[in-house]
Amino acid sequence: MHATLSGEVVRAGERARERFYDSSGYGHPVDGGALELAPVEAAHLLYRGDLAAVEGPDGAAMDFRAFLSSAAVSEIAFLVYKDLRDRGFYLSPAREGWSDAPAARDAVDDGAVDFVVYPRGSGPWDDEVAHRVAVVSEREGVPADALGDLVLAVVDEESALTYLATEHREVSGTSETDLPAGVAGDLLSDRLFLWDPPAALYDAGFYGQPLDDGAGDVIQLSLLEAAYLAREGVLDVDGGAEAVVERGREVEGERFDRRLRVYESLRERGLVPKTGYKFGADFRTYADVDSVEDLGHSELLVRVLERGHSFSPRDLALDVRLAHGVRKEMVFALVDGDADDRDGVEWLSVTRLTP
Amino acid sequence: MHATLSGEVVRAGERARERFYDSSGYGHPVDGGALELAPVEAAHLLYRGDLAAVEGPDGAAMDFRAFLSSAAVSEIAFLVYKDLRDRGFYLSPAREGWSDAPAARDAVDDGAVDFVVYPRGSGPWDDEVAHRVAVVSEREGVPADALGDLVLAVVDEESALTYLATEHREVSGTSETDLPAGVAGDLLSDRLFLWDPPAALYDAGFYGQPLDDGAGDVIQLSLLEAAYLAREGVLDVDGGAEAVVERGREVEGERFDRRLRVYESLRERGLVPKTGYKFGADFRTYADVDSVEDLGHSELLVRVLERGHSFSPRDLALDVRLAHGVRKEMVFALVDGDADDRDGVEWLSVTRLTP
Repeated sequence: MHATLSGEVVRAGERARERFYDSSGYGHPVDGGALELAPVEAAHLLYRGDLAAVEGPDGAAMDFRAFLSSAAVSEIAFLVYKDLRDRGFYLSPAREGWSDAPAARDAVDDGAVDFVVYPRGSGPWDDEVAHRVAVVSEREGVPADALGDLVLAVVDEESALTYLATEHREVSGTSETDLPAGVAGDLLSDRLFLWDPPAALYDAGFYGQPLDDGAGDVIQLSLLEAAYLAREGVLDVDGGAEAVVERGREVEGERFDRRLRVYESLRERGLVPKTGYKFGADFRTYADVDSVEDLGHSELLVRVLERGHSFSPRDLALDVRLAHGVRKEMVFALVDGDADDRDGVEWLSVTRLTP
Repeated sequence: MHATLSGEVVRAGERARERFYDSSGYGHPVDGGALELAPVEAAHLLYRGDLAAVEGPDGAAMDFRAFLSSAAVSEIAFLVYKDLRDRGFYLSPAREGWSDAPAARDAVDDGAVDFVVYPRGSGPWDDEVAHRVAVVSEREGVPADALGDLVLAVVDEESALTYLATEHREVSGTSETDLPAGVAGDLLSDRLFLWDPPAALYDAGFYGQPLDDGAGDVIQLSLLEAAYLAREGVLDVDGGAEAVVERGREVEGERFDRRLRVYESLRERGLVPKTGYKFGADFRTYADVDSVEDLGHSELLVRVLERGHSFSPRDLALDVRLAHGVRKEMVFALVDGDADDRDGVEWLSVTRLTP
């Protein structure tokens, strides 16, 4: 069977259309009965032995080895294409005209997508898309704002694949506590001590940490908790909320402001954020706190990032694996670098996927 | 009981010596029968109610609240001191003359140590030291070269404590494979394909990754594996080892050289390093590989760092927790930034400790 590489397309004749498109969803048919294949699709047909060779622009015949070594096809795209085929999926490159599914057409406009993957049993002639997949090497940075409604297929340096599903989501909970105003606190170097706080502050609101487990009245507040409670009028501290925020900036820089915005946003949505330090995150969150005595399992791990952040796939893998290991969901809270808009937090969930 | 703050010491009389030192290991006795307490020890006695007040240089009496709010004592040092006392330990500040134990005297010379902790049942009048403890806030950077034979007591922003034991260690294994010279490979963009390698390369040496699980002969090598095998004379590739190393630097910068030095060092010590990508690390290692068929559990997770690296306690916590969750030991491989000395790798193990 004759196939010729021309620009970014491999052209084959009518028999190829019947054999590869109609029966297996490779390529897309063009006027006159021929079939156009993306180079990654041709590479897979070469690998399977369904094509013997592809003729290059110079007339030379390339076998699988020569074609994969050429500039026509990315080997990491091939590895992902092959893996998804091995798993029983039909898939198309996100190219204009390659698929009729509306979601596939959107994927073409969205430059981040490499492949649209159809549900098992479906193909490019159907309307449904199961996954929009972007192929990245472990070493490439991945911009946060390209993620959401996208599966990252990460190829590590030893050619193993990990799929990470990224989704925008909302977060909400039912935690709420009425607290009196004017609770006094002392600002020490990077935390506050409350020497005689109302019991509800910790017992119902889960603010702070008792100095003595179980016993005693003294509560330690983090700077974030203190800044929030001071702004809410609950906490009374020398210099007011501003003094606490200033101290936060001294010990943590601008990161403190970003974390405070996310802390406030979580509290306003009815979640209780507590430190995620032990998990290497900014927060762990509890959606439904009535009292600390009946505390359930925390559901989310939240890491605060600037919206312009670029993820290293390695760091992403670390976060997602750890969250999975402790039965929590990893959520990234993306905030603008400068704005002071509490509603401007975007929540991006990342989980491991086995397609 | 009268106690007076003077400089960095709280002085108390002879009754204090009997009551606090002889029976509970606080402070250290000085000539004339008096007792000197470090401020953190005095804070703990105030907290317990064993001291009612400490007189300041201005003659004012400070209770626990006032003393803790003063500049005389660090609240995070107090939190760690209190926690170790709560756990039943006696401990001393790492100060000249505060303890007779030889290890305590070393700890004074080593500026990184804050407390020497005695085995349960022992005290400053004995010779043994169980832990050398450094107190750090979650937000402080911790220089890698200060670690080893040291327990980090990390106080997080909500005042919870985590103890991380750091030790220098050696790594070794028994993996070894005889391989023929002159195995051909093609360098693609950031990996190599070996189209007809000897079976032992993967099956016995655990180099590379088959293109097809189980079947087929094609092996993909990472750039690190290829650079090592080319230097060893096993791999034959256009441009030799230098071409592979150059490509590694192109895609990864100087980090590639550091990782290659650690890769080589691990192989030379009889361990098989494979990518630690899924764990967010540089390598996972197998100490005793005879054949891939009988592969055991990988024992270590290795992260490569420059010797001058400063750890964020949060990142440390993330690494150590993940390693613990997958039953591996977290080891940091510290290498000099510039030197090309393969033996210059220092291995630092970090594990969680419950004192």
